[in-house]
Amino acid sequence: MNIISLLTKKRKKGKLSKEEIEYFVKEYSRGNIEDYQATGLVMAMCINGLDKEELKDLMIAMANSGERIDTSDISDCLVEKYSIGGVGDKISLILLPILSALDITAGKLSHRGIGISGSTADKLSSIPKIKVDISIDQYKENLKKEKIAITSNFIDIAPAEKLLYDLRRKIECIDNLQLIAASIMSRRIAVSTNKLLINIQCGNGSPIKNYKDAKVIARVLIDSGKLAGVEVRCVISKVYEPLGKCIGNSIEIIEVIEALKGYMEKDVEDLVYAIASQMIIMAGKAKNVKEAEKMARFAIKSGKALEKFKKLIEIQGRKCRCYR
Amino acid sequence: MNIISLLTKKRKKGKLSKEEIEYFVKEYSRGNIEDYQATGLVMAMCINGLDKEELKDLMIAMANSGERIDTSDISDCLVEKYSIGGVGDKISLILLPILSALDITAGKLSHRGIGISGSTADKLSSIPKIKVDISIDQYKENLKKEKIAITSNFIDIAPAEKLLYDLRRKIECIDNLQLIAASIMSRRIAVSTNKLLINIQCGNGSPIKNYKDAKVIARVLIDSGKLAGVEVRCVISKVYEPLGKCIGNSIEIIEVIEALKGYMEKDVEDLVYAIASQMIIMAGKAKNVKEAEKMARFAIKSGKALEKFKKLIEIQGRKCRCYR
Repeated sequence: MNIISLLTKKRKKGKLSKEEIEYFVKEYSRGNIEDYQATGLVMAMCINGLDKEELKDLMIAMANSGERIDTSDISDCLVEKYSIGGVGDKISLILLPILSALDITAGKLSHRGIGISGSTADKLSSIPKIKVDISIDQYKENLKKEKIAITSNFIDIAPAEKLLYDLRRKIECIDNLQLIAASIMSRRIAVSTNKLLINIQCGNGSPIKNYKDAKVIARVLIDSGKLAGVEVRCVISKVYEPLGKCIGNSIEIIEVIEALKGYMEKDVEDLVYAIASQMIIMAGKAKNVKEAEKMARFAIKSGKALEKFKKLIEIQGRKCRCYR
Repeated sequence: MNIISLLTKKRKKGKLSKEEIEYFVKEYSRGNIEDYQATGLVMAMCINGLDKEELKDLMIAMANSGERIDTSDISDCLVEKYSIGGVGDKISLILLPILSALDITAGKLSHRGIGISGSTADKLSSIPKIKVDISIDQYKENLKKEKIAITSNFIDIAPAEKLLYDLRRKIECIDNLQLIAASIMSRRIAVSTNKLLINIQCGNGSPIKNYKDAKVIARVLIDSGKLAGVEVRCVISKVYEPLGKCIGNSIEIIEVIEALKGYMEKDVEDLVYAIASQMIIMAGKAKNVKEAEKMARFAIKSGKALEKFKKLIEIQGRKCRCYR
């Protein structure tokens, strides 16, 4: 097997076998395939597309390229949230405490410094002395104990996905839906996610410009999830201006705390409860949206969500302080 | 303008403007575009194709990438022959003396060491002390004086074509018909060819495997020629075994001399006269194939073609001897 035969096959609209996709992902990760050949293959994949099996094989090959985290021992109602697009998006930091307060295990693997808008980990890191890069073992322990945890310490998760993303950027193939879906799903497979809520934000503040495109992406993501054994639900929201009233890591944290006390901007409130409701249903804690939303609102009103946020800071922050 | 916008446009089946194609050819030649981006664009060109204007612009941009040779002052009946595929192909060395004997200017720009089979220049170089890399000025002078000349000294002709060919090889896009046609035509534009006979050899001894493909290539070449203002005719021949009886530069030269004396293998004879006839018609020296073939046969029978071959050796060889 060699890259040349793969290039020719995909250029001529052929179907790559599981072995060929594994070969490409593995050998490119090892540096055995040159960038100029890899970009050729990625371009051919973008133009000629992948069929369901190729897409599945690609997701799994990327997932298998690094460390895999088994979370099956943590909880059977672990749900994850992933967001595409958006500026001022502090939803996860409001959502996780709500879910956790409702006895739903709510973990978040969040990259540092992706894009201009700041990730969940970036925002959280503005709290003095907090440790957002706890080890995966610690992350799992926190999830088991407190049902809430965040870490950015997962660089060994699906490293091929990062490499292929960089490759796509070099030839501006970042808007290809199948490769976007494969990217997202490969990381989720690697960390054993089986329930995933994806918030697709569309509008001029997002790479996804309109509702029509968002619906297409949602379909590809849900289908890709099925291939990978991940239950996917998508919430599509509009983003024509930043979410809430604050933009900037530290002031967004202040906004999060206000929200957890019950003071939310209308757009934040709508989105938080729309997403929370779906995640509560996915976790099997409610039968319908009405019931789920009521539970979520109670988590805020009762102060339990705020308590959970404090707990998150404590378990990821105080430990840090001990090391001084 | 930047390579990224070109990549995106071609990936999405857009049409590249003349300026964009010129930009790509020029900046890639200068080393300002990385291989990994250029292969992406070439792959997108192969899959999504080029329209007539794009194809024309590409040919001309490559032709303009280096030195241009003006042959308009040499003769109005200068015809060139180019061959695709084939092992043991010594046709050009029989053909040129025939044409020259009939007062048709017959020049040949031939690369050294392309492929395993040996080029016209490679074969000729097996004659002791011959100089196959005469300067372009000398080449033109020989054409004017003796109506016959061969040189391999044209590395500055369409250098971008060579760079893009190497790029295509890296991602195995060498069988793309439009890019093959653009490659061939760009060199012909650069040397001001306006009449070109292309011998397309098809079969298991050629990259073109069957007659159907050969016909498709012929059509693309003729159409590309029209775009570039080059009159193209194609002669399709089969190549399931090597042409003639000899393979190997020096013994092929012996076979050429035998052929010029009138002793040709059947396959060589058929091909020589089929091609010669078309070239004689293109040069305006005959009205139909029957008349043209009669003239070609006479050039051999009368010994005039053999005389011209001797002259070729003399004007490209004896000069060399003087320097001893």
